[in-house]
Amino acid sequence: MDYQAVLEEVAAYARPFVRQGQVADYIPALERVSADRFGIAVADIHGAVYGVGDWEVPFSVQSISKTFSLALVMAQSPGNQGDGDIWKRVGREPSGTPFNSLVQLEAENGIPRNPFINAGALVVTDRLQTLTGDASTSMLHFLREESGNPDLAFDQAVADSEAEHGDRNAALAHFMASFGNLENPVPSVIEHYFWQCSIEMSCRDLAVAGGFLARHGLRADGSRLLEAREAKRINAVMLTCGTYDAAGEFAYRVGLPAKSGVGGGIIAVIPGRCTLCVWSPGLDARGNSVAGAAALDHFTTLTGWSVF
Amino acid sequence: MDYQAVLEEVAAYARPFVRQGQVADYIPALERVSADRFGIAVADIHGAVYGVGDWEVPFSVQSISKTFSLALVMAQSPGNQGDGDIWKRVGREPSGTPFNSLVQLEAENGIPRNPFINAGALVVTDRLQTLTGDASTSMLHFLREESGNPDLAFDQAVADSEAEHGDRNAALAHFMASFGNLENPVPSVIEHYFWQCSIEMSCRDLAVAGGFLARHGLRADGSRLLEAREAKRINAVMLTCGTYDAAGEFAYRVGLPAKSGVGGGIIAVIPGRCTLCVWSPGLDARGNSVAGAAALDHFTTLTGWSVF
Amino acid sequence: MDYQAVLEEVAAYARPFVRQGQVADYIPALERVSADRFGIAVADIHGAVYGVGDWEVPFSVQSISKTFSLALVMAQSPGNQGDGDIWKRVGREPSGTPFNSLVQLEAENGIPRNPFINAGALVVTDRLQTLTGDASTSMLHFLREESGNPDLAFDQAVADSEAEHGDRNAALAHFMASFGNLENPVPSVIEHYFWQCSIEMSCRDLAVAGGFLARHGLRADGSRLLEAREAKRINAVMLTCGTYDAAGEFAYRVGLPAKSGVGGGIIAVIPGRCTLCVWSPGLDARGNSVAGAAALDHFTTLTGWSVF
Amino acid sequence: MDYQAVLEEVAAYARPFVRQGQVADYIPALERVSADRFGIAVADIHGAVYGVGDWEVPFSVQSISKTFSLALVMAQSPGNQGDGDIWKRVGREPSGTPFNSLVQLEAENGIPRNPFINAGALVVTDRLQTLTGDASTSMLHFLREESGNPDLAFDQAVADSEAEHGDRNAALAHFMASFGNLENPVPSVIEHYFWQCSIEMSCRDLAVAGGFLARHGLRADGSRLLEAREAKRINAVMLTCGTYDAAGEFAYRVGLPAKSGVGGGIIAVIPGRCTLCVWSPGLDARGNSVAGAAALDHFTTLTGWSVF
Repeated sequence: MDYQAVLEEVAAYARPFVRQGQVADYIPALERVSADRFGIAVADIHGAVYGVGDWEVPFSVQSISKTFSLALVMAQSPGNQGDGDIWKRVGREPSGTPFNSLVQLEAENGIPRNPFINAGALVVTDRLQTLTGDASTSMLHFLREESGNPDLAFDQAVADSEAEHGDRNAALAHFMASFGNLENPVPSVIEHYFWQCSIEMSCRDLAVAGGFLARHGLRADGSRLLEAREAKRINAVMLTCGTYDAAGEFAYRVGLPAKSGVGGGIIAVIPGRCTLCVWSPGLDARGNSVAGAAALDHFTTLTGWSVF
Repeated sequence: MDYQAVLEEVAAYARPFVRQGQVADYIPALERVSADRFGIAVADIHGAVYGVGDWEVPFSVQSISKTFSLALVMAQSPGNQGDGDIWKRVGREPSGTPFNSLVQLEAENGIPRNPFINAGALVVTDRLQTLTGDASTSMLHFLREESGNPDLAFDQAVADSEAEHGDRNAALAHFMASFGNLENPVPSVIEHYFWQCSIEMSCRDLAVAGGFLARHGLRADGSRLLEAREAKRINAVMLTCGTYDAAGEFAYRVGLPAKSGVGGGIIAVIPGRCTLCVWSPGLDARGNSVAGAAALDHFTTLTGWSVF
Repeated sequence: MDYQAVLEEVAAYARPFVRQGQVADYIPALERVSADRFGIAVADIHGAVYGVGDWEVPFSVQSISKTFSLALVMAQSPGNQGDGDIWKRVGREPSGTPFNSLVQLEAENGIPRNPFINAGALVVTDRLQTLTGDASTSMLHFLREESGNPDLAFDQAVADSEAEHGDRNAALAHFMASFGNLENPVPSVIEHYFWQCSIEMSCRDLAVAGGFLARHGLRADGSRLLEAREAKRINAVMLTCGTYDAAGEFAYRVGLPAKSGVGGGIIAVIPGRCTLCVWSPGLDARGNSVAGAAALDHFTTLTGWSVF
Repeated sequence: MDYQAVLEEVAAYARPFVRQGQVADYIPALERVSADRFGIAVADIHGAVYGVGDWEVPFSVQSISKTFSLALVMAQSPGNQGDGDIWKRVGREPSGTPFNSLVQLEAENGIPRNPFINAGALVVTDRLQTLTGDASTSMLHFLREESGNPDLAFDQAVADSEAEHGDRNAALAHFMASFGNLENPVPSVIEHYFWQCSIEMSCRDLAVAGGFLARHGLRADGSRLLEAREAKRINAVMLTCGTYDAAGEFAYRVGLPAKSGVGGGIIAVIPGRCTLCVWSPGLDARGNSVAGAAALDHFTTLTGWSVF
């Protein structure tokens, strides 16, 4: 596979979709990003990396961080069983409702439907906080090591901005606390959650850091982060729940495990082959990058590599 | 009407219902109250007061305070129109869901269904805080004056206990704040809300203090708190929304405007005649005093005084 | 009380509201009615009747019939207990959702929230069918006797039209049948329901026929239809549930037990004094007559006769 | 791959799970099936078939038929674009609610969330009826041809029994008709739907008939039923929506596109390799075969063939 040629063709295809969506504007720090940006990178399982466009420009990972916090919790659970008891506190089903909805939580006793809606990610962050003592820093260190980029950092302006506009997430956290589904104090859980979301990474960084998902659990240095079974299971959750309430549509069109963020990034996995990351800030109504989804759609068309 | 004789008959009728319910146990301070308590008082519109049983024993008013915060907001609204703009921020419809539910809020953009569910009362408290600068103290002063009992006080243990177990209310408040429906900071609104709920009053105090609802808006000293139209409207909201999601059942059985609290108190109004307050801590599944509801039911049977 | 003078003042007040709403257009037979119509009638408890405007023009009673089917079921229940077991099959709480919603039914095992939403009325009609063998004809006969108008009749065009556009009601009925909450075959229940709704009556007819609600259960001829307690309870259900999901607002503004229909009629009760009926076809977004509500609002302002 | 050996190991593993669930009892015809049954079959893409246990015993396909009606509609859509306009009338998202729920339909204007919940399958059947003039017979003929078994037939007792207990499906159909989302009369759509569900097939028949899903759209005779893209998309919908509201859990554990039925069958696809069918009548709380799910879980563990 000539990845570089494919990526160039994909970028040409996706170009008209750039600017079609709406840049996230719920916090000023995200709103400032230029809608014209587009980048895509592929990291194959042997360590080669390819990219076109703005593939080395850092952006706010936002919800893509939820993939890594889930992986870290599964990796650090006692007895190396991978699952620990996190699955008693969060489900694995698509939510059928928007990512920050409270309705489902009320009907299901404070157990979020899956780890990729905000409520579920707060529970995972809470667990990571208990396991590591510092949920956000431990994630940052992992991402630095795995991406090979020691300069990765939190964006304090973004984290502060999230906190300032964080009433919805505070409501989710207090609500789950009222059901006894948080181990740490609400303000601490929210703070670490916002820090995780604020990490700045490029398409290159994310494709490389997410390599363990394509390598069935092996880290970049060949050591094992997750059992193969666990890595596959994260991919399954990404496919069924990774793109907000458009996961069914995304599986239908693209057919790859993927996790999107409102910063405009999408990470996608072709198990046994490669990890991709695409970035373009314009979002559709459900919060997924318009040009990013178009690019992944075309990538699978060109390569024939959907999981189906 | 020989009120004293009626009350004694009512008390005899209600006695078997005492202890049938469950004392509120979500905070320790309420759980400690003896389930054996029962008292009832009537204050007629001319100032006479009657009572039997534990009618002079103070208890935690809890949600009954919602009636007074609504009255104070309506009384203090600019231009003395009574309504101000509070009705743009809270509805007047029965909720069809439990008193502390978030579902309805999400479907209706952060506008609570009525001022007597917790979310609605938080909005009213927020408004009272803006109007008075101290929502809880202004209510306490009003209740002292109107009941003629200068010893009324907050119960700090209850307020602290509520705050400690206050995640659900914090979730409601943050959620409404995320829709822009709070004027003051969330922690301040919650704090005043809990202080209001913690006020200790007896059946006597509450029946007397609620006299303005039977006197079409006139205070105990003959001055006007509310226009007659406004007092009637508070009665209407009490009848349709005052007893949590059992308001229809309560109207059917008792047929009086009423507001209950999880402390076991219920205040009820017979417009143009009298205000009643009954207290017994055992609650039914919807949070209303079992013996209290039975007593009011029998009172209307004996007197023929339902509004229908 | 000079009813005639009051009604004329009320009509003058309501006139500008005529044509403000939208005539029901879900079936052609209703859509054809002129939006300019306005009539109001009062029947006092002594048998005197007053009216202005189009008070003698027949219109489609639609959901107002729900009041009479409930009364007939309560009147004919075994042992003259009035309630029979109808209240095991339908609740008495405001629904918090539109009148033809299925959501609440699903959450509550096929038990409709109250007898005045469509689902609840279907259950009441089903019960009346079991009790009488002919739910619609028995209601028609009762209304003829009680109104003193032997010419009352079904409007076949309306009934047929309802049936043709009756998929929503068929869905409600089949859904309840799936929970075992219908005694008769679905098509028969729906048919009788539509016939009941299609009855044509004038404001005069309805005010007179509804007189038993103001007379605490006594029929026009002095015989007893319902116990006083039962009549009061129907009034309570009307107040809390009678105007679709605007019952709280209606209680707040008007403060009377009332039942509206999408034909533009509203029947209202002042217990111990009189029964009113107002008609104007323009409806607000919730299905209540705009000019009709304004007229009742002004009537209570002029007379001071709200139940609160 | 020695399929026969794998299937035998799988059957041994699954044996203790047989009888753990509950045989579907909502219609007598299903209830009669012995809970002890277990069979599994694999058809590889080259036409070889393997099986163990009761793999040649016919059972009621029930919801597995939904896969074939969707495929037939996509295959017969005008212009051979495959999608036609079916996707304007039914979504592709997991439902987040039980398979026969009405709640979602009401919130989303009569558009079912996906083609595998009952409401969605009714829409697909309605479309197939329009395209073929006889939705159930056209499916039966296709299944006979594709399975090579000319004896496949409807089970009239099952179809009649479904119709007798079909109020929930009638409610769904009437409800969608009220939104204008059915092209044919409700009774006809329901009837064809029940006939489709009543078809009796064995594990062998189903694994062979579903071969086109593993062969990227090619039929058993090598002719093309669906474009490769379309076949992949059906697999995607199976993975995200095929096992009722346990699709996320199923993807997590098994990681294969699959469709289950309350007759106890599950069909599963390993794209490019084979199609499986497993059968055991005991169901879990969400309607999926307990032993069937365990068998597929173990099959992917032994072979390493999940799509992730």
